[in-house]
Amino acid sequence: MSDMPSHVTIKEVGPREGFQFEKGDIGLAAKISLVDALSDTGVSTIEFTSFVSPKWVPQMADAEQMVAGIKRVPGVAYEAIWLNEAGLERAARLRESLALRPMFGVAATDTFTRKNTNRSVSEKIAELPGWARRYQALGMDWIDVGVMAAFGCNYEGDVTPAQVIEVVEKVEEQAVSCGSRLGNISLADTMGWANPLQIKRLVGAVRARWPEIPVKLHLHDTRALAIANVVAALEIGVDRFDSAVAGLGGCPFAAHKGAAGNVTTEDLVFLCQELGVTTGIDLDAMIEAGQLAERVVGHPLPGKLKSGGNLEKYRARARATAAAASA
Amino acid sequence: MSDMPSHVTIKEVGPREGFQFEKGDIGLAAKISLVDALSDTGVSTIEFTSFVSPKWVPQMADAEQMVAGIKRVPGVAYEAIWLNEAGLERAARLRESLALRPMFGVAATDTFTRKNTNRSVSEKIAELPGWARRYQALGMDWIDVGVMAAFGCNYEGDVTPAQVIEVVEKVEEQAVSCGSRLGNISLADTMGWANPLQIKRLVGAVRARWPEIPVKLHLHDTRALAIANVVAALEIGVDRFDSAVAGLGGCPFAAHKGAAGNVTTEDLVFLCQELGVTTGIDLDAMIEAGQLAERVVGHPLPGKLKSGGNLEKYRARARATAAAASA
Repeated sequence: MSDMPSHVTIKEVGPREGFQFEKGDIGLAAKISLVDALSDTGVSTIEFTSFVSPKWVPQMADAEQMVAGIKRVPGVAYEAIWLNEAGLERAARLRESLALRPMFGVAATDTFTRKNTNRSVSEKIAELPGWARRYQALGMDWIDVGVMAAFGCNYEGDVTPAQVIEVVEKVEEQAVSCGSRLGNISLADTMGWANPLQIKRLVGAVRARWPEIPVKLHLHDTRALAIANVVAALEIGVDRFDSAVAGLGGCPFAAHKGAAGNVTTEDLVFLCQELGVTTGIDLDAMIEAGQLAERVVGHPLPGKLKSGGNLEKYRARARATAAAASA
Repeated sequence: MSDMPSHVTIKEVGPREGFQFEKGDIGLAAKISLVDALSDTGVSTIEFTSFVSPKWVPQMADAEQMVAGIKRVPGVAYEAIWLNEAGLERAARLRESLALRPMFGVAATDTFTRKNTNRSVSEKIAELPGWARRYQALGMDWIDVGVMAAFGCNYEGDVTPAQVIEVVEKVEEQAVSCGSRLGNISLADTMGWANPLQIKRLVGAVRARWPEIPVKLHLHDTRALAIANVVAALEIGVDRFDSAVAGLGGCPFAAHKGAAGNVTTEDLVFLCQELGVTTGIDLDAMIEAGQLAERVVGHPLPGKLKSGGNLEKYRARARATAAAASA
């Protein structure tokens, strides 16, 4: 495992992914309390709300109130997402309080892109110049591309590395044509199709094509392989991951009831701890945030560490017992 | 991943591990219905009950009735466990209906062995000749050793490969001293301490010491790493695993409420399917058994595939849609 990075950067996406997926009405104060708890864990980025139409995602109608209500811890970037120009305008009005990022999301398959946006992949990419110009006007001359369903699609089946590379090439072409460049590439296993061999295959192919561009992974745990997929990625040096506290979340468009949340933040931090990889995150604080997330949504969430516990506590107790016995 | 085996043998231990851990009273008929469903999945071994004192484990008081009640599918080995001579005598009386196995379990640490059996590791191993002779009388001149807490112990902390090897060497010495030999070595991560690096380290050390002896892994998913640990083991050629349908189970002596079940059988079978490793198990039938397990215990169980679904179904649907579109 010689390519394993010494440090991994984790973006916490639980509040944004999780709250949009929850059926019940979660109060504003409860949502803010979770973001505030996350702010105290040492995590460097929290994606905490979406500027989307309240008609389609009523759970996110309070985006502006969230921005106004959360505390701001120095060193933490507070991010949000948007899916259309109106959403970006709402976010841009709050740019003093938000870390804006020039994101452009597109799925690897036409059917999934149509379900999400009523456009084909080509039609979606044809819109990129408009986005690039809006981002340039906000001072950002690059595009961070997120490829959804990059490992497989419930509608179209397996997705090959060649399909993903073709999509990213078209995105890059459009970006460059209007004076922007490719920032980073996020590969999302939106519907839980990835396995460890495929992680190595796709990430390897993307890095061979764009050796200088950082690759980030966004992995859902629909079929139990998310942590194993992280290990496969670490083994080839991937050092950027999205994750969700307590395993909050899931994709509301994924067309089956088993759509599971992202890989769990505290489980990912524990994995890194045990492998000797730093994250800058206080595992015990993240476990407490996971326990809070469960209280906030009012039902069990899938993360394991919040009941399994941090092994460092058992190690400390065992050392204390041994010291007392030999004293 | 060049050492990956082409076939993996899975022992289903959910009924034995799971029913002993459940608090409520699960009726005999319900237990039998789950074992019968498992019999139809293609799994080759089912460990389905324990001959232990009803005083300590009242959930297993119906062991004889279980043996009498389950259906027997040709090609499936039906196994049970015992912890003392009285238990073995009960099992041996039913040897026409059971696959007896000359097992000997011992933990890698004194404290855990004392909690389980009121003996030190050395005292426990000193009892081995008695077991070896009983097994010889039943026609079995070898010992299958199971090392519990082989990767770490909630009481004593980290466990080194040297500690595990010392325990197995003592077991082998005792076995050989009375005319038996070492059969296979099962390494159990009883309290969820293992990580992928440690799997490779311990399995590598044990195989270097006993190159001819098969190594089996028994992994609990207390801290979310069980599937990643399986992948690490597959990468170095391990081809024998215990697992529990739906993730049933957990260790009642593990001293913390988060004790989680074994790695989930249907999730493990799915992993193997995606990696191109055969198991002989029908994944869809195992998913149905997982759904039945959840109804039998009456509460959610951790396995993912029973809600996530088999990707082969999505692939078939996508192929059918593509064929219809091009027709």
